[in-house]
Amino acid sequence: TGDKANGRILVYTCNGCHGIPGTNNSYPQYPVPKIAGQNEQYIISALHEYKTGDRTHPTMMAQAQSLSDQEIEDIAAYLSSIKPK
Amino acid sequence: TGDKANGRILVYTCNGCHGIPGTNNSYPQYPVPKIAGQNEQYIISALHEYKTGDRTHPTMMAQAQSLSDQEIEDIAAYLSSIKPK
Repeated sequence: TGDKANGRILVYTCNGCHGIPGTNNSYPQYPVPKIAGQNEQYIISALHEYKTGDRTHPTMMAQAQSLSDQEIEDIAAYLSSIKPK
Repeated sequence: TGDKANGRILVYTCNGCHGIPGTNNSYPQYPVPKIAGQNEQYIISALHEYKTGDRTHPTMMAQAQSLSDQEIEDIAAYLSSIKPK
């Protein structure tokens, strides 16, 4: 099970790209999805897909590869618990 | 530019899987993301990626391949205009 409190710390990194509504990240053509309030299991799946390369995006693959399975669960527990913006 | 009114009609199909919070679709292991209120450009990108096969998911590829570029814009205009659940 995910640890929301640890997830809250881990998502600090995510905010650079995902935190501001409508913001694009450093690949200007790639629009960034909103993740606050997203489905917990979907977040876990998406991060695992980026980690294995089944889903491809340079920044997200690098981020996911730096996360343990527990950290992915923590992030998903936190993000799914907060209100969508 | 997307036509929200047409998008509202087109998303009838999406609701079978995406409409119910936490619902899984016919692939029970695949959790379905929330899409209401999602970033407009992200929805357009995601549907184009499914259409071309850059992003893979059997149901979503079939759906996206049935949509014209204009219909994808219409769906994105509508979904991004509604309140996240």
